[in-house]
Amino acid sequence: MVENEKVILSGMRPTGRLHLGHFEGALKNYLQLQAEGVLCYFMIADFHALSSEYKTPEVVKENTRELLLDWLAVGISEEHAVIFVQSDVLEHFELFTVLSMITPLAWAERCPTYKEQQQELPDRDLATYGFLGYPILQAADILLYRATHVPVGQDQLPHLEMTREIARRFNHFYGPVLSEPQSLLTASPKVPGIDGRKMSKSYGNTIMLSDPDQAIERKIMQMYTDPQKMRASTPGNPDNCVVLALYRMYAPEEISGIESECRAGGRGCVDCKRGLIPVLHKVIQPIRNEREHWAERPEELEEILKSGAIIARERARGTMQMVRKAMQWRNEINSK
Amino acid sequence: MVENEKVILSGMRPTGRLHLGHFEGALKNYLQLQAEGVLCYFMIADFHALSSEYKTPEVVKENTRELLLDWLAVGISEEHAVIFVQSDVLEHFELFTVLSMITPLAWAERCPTYKEQQQELPDRDLATYGFLGYPILQAADILLYRATHVPVGQDQLPHLEMTREIARRFNHFYGPVLSEPQSLLTASPKVPGIDGRKMSKSYGNTIMLSDPDQAIERKIMQMYTDPQKMRASTPGNPDNCVVLALYRMYAPEEISGIESECRAGGRGCVDCKRGLIPVLHKVIQPIRNEREHWAERPEELEEILKSGAIIARERARGTMQMVRKAMQWRNEINSK
Repeated sequence: MVENEKVILSGMRPTGRLHLGHFEGALKNYLQLQAEGVLCYFMIADFHALSSEYKTPEVVKENTRELLLDWLAVGISEEHAVIFVQSDVLEHFELFTVLSMITPLAWAERCPTYKEQQQELPDRDLATYGFLGYPILQAADILLYRATHVPVGQDQLPHLEMTREIARRFNHFYGPVLSEPQSLLTASPKVPGIDGRKMSKSYGNTIMLSDPDQAIERKIMQMYTDPQKMRASTPGNPDNCVVLALYRMYAPEEISGIESECRAGGRGCVDCKRGLIPVLHKVIQPIRNEREHWAERPEELEEILKSGAIIARERARGTMQMVRKAMQWRNEINSK
Repeated sequence: MVENEKVILSGMRPTGRLHLGHFEGALKNYLQLQAEGVLCYFMIADFHALSSEYKTPEVVKENTRELLLDWLAVGISEEHAVIFVQSDVLEHFELFTVLSMITPLAWAERCPTYKEQQQELPDRDLATYGFLGYPILQAADILLYRATHVPVGQDQLPHLEMTREIARRFNHFYGPVLSEPQSLLTASPKVPGIDGRKMSKSYGNTIMLSDPDQAIERKIMQMYTDPQKMRASTPGNPDNCVVLALYRMYAPEEISGIESECRAGGRGCVDCKRGLIPVLHKVIQPIRNEREHWAERPEELEEILKSGAIIARERARGTMQMVRKAMQWRNEINSK
């Protein structure tokens, strides 16, 4: 591998099963990078999950499996990407500790998500030392794999900027070792939840990639449509309707006809919803089937994570060798 | 090894060569524990040094060697103790990260040394995330070796209490895994520096274990004596004299005669100092000779640290297995 090749690091916190919003946002992007033949490290960030879920590590463990199942179900493949769990690579902790030593406390404190998360998760006790260090652990994740690019949404840009600053500070002290990653701003189409707000676990308005048929059907029938459209014959406003938004995403070839009918008052919402059922089944069923396929193969799952960790660790160790050398540590005698 | 045996963990930061104050304080205590056949882990805490000296890692590296030389020179022996360097055992970083996740930020902030050190070392930039985590890294050091006892001075008691609190908090969340270490309060006789203040590197008043004969002689001749004793025949006050204090420590059989002579005005300070020269030579020369012996054997030094790290790591790994199990991590697939 030549060093100037594109290298991607991206992680997700194992905090629960994934939904259509994740699929359209992060996962399709993963699949595209993978299809382009880019070297991708996809990390299940169990320690980032632990930083807020430390009171229930058994849930983090279960969700690690769930996340892997969702990834494999949508087509992320160990043949094209390095899939691994953060805590399987001890070097994360080592680089985190190294970077902790050089990172000004004020940089960690000014990180916008620190206070945001404390407000968003009031039932968690997030005033911990580790949670304050979240962006430093994230910097270690990225720099450890010498990632050239990190796919991020707009809201993650401050985190990535801190990673770049930490890399610069390290290089300033110890010489040019850590490479500053570039952001790979990804267009993530907003997927509406069934209540019309952004699809999000915390709103309870999601369609999960693992939802059974009946759950999907029930959720479709509950979907928010134009509230002005009182009966089938009333003309509706398609811009204000979750059902139409999902047709637009998953049956684009039908959408213009459906919109005209709706506006003309020639289409009732109940029928319209019924029509969406097979459309969403076509999206979810193959994913769910693939998920079930993998769920029955725990040894293979373990094997995937194991080989992923070995490959990831190899690269991480290479970075730590350079870090140790730059910091003039003693000969590495026991870091295996 | 049975688990209810006494197990000691003690570390020193490699920040420079050791002096008589260290010898009388920490090192004689190490030697006694070693002689009693207690299982001792003696750690060169290079990462604790880095937390303040991160801008000059090459100095930490050099001081790691110097500290080892001083230890071996006074008789600390790999045959009786496990001698190792902190950064050779990756599990320190792992447990540090784990404990970070559960330690309230306020516990770290309230640690008394945090602000003290910032005042004492104004030329260092200590407002880093890692320096704030110092007591958590220290807790990881101690808990990693399941130490039952930690030799501490009075001023270190708050740190040890925090270690105990962190262990309790871990056990509260995840079950009884980490054992709370007891303090082993050690009497450390105050050794006066040549200016009469406490012997300390920062006062520049030390007698080093590695000082050559001429340096010792020069320092003795500069020593503070009773300022009221203007000439040899003036009666002196032995309580107020560094030279007499050192006789008291290293030639106790002579001290009562010397004191009487001094009080009676029968002993001049210059002669008295000259008499101390062979006394201190007898203390320092064997240490210095032993130091030179080891200094010529870099491969053996490396071998000692290497075997120490292997033994230390074995125990650390055992602890991390228990920690991982208690936290219900996935099967440990790659932690070697």
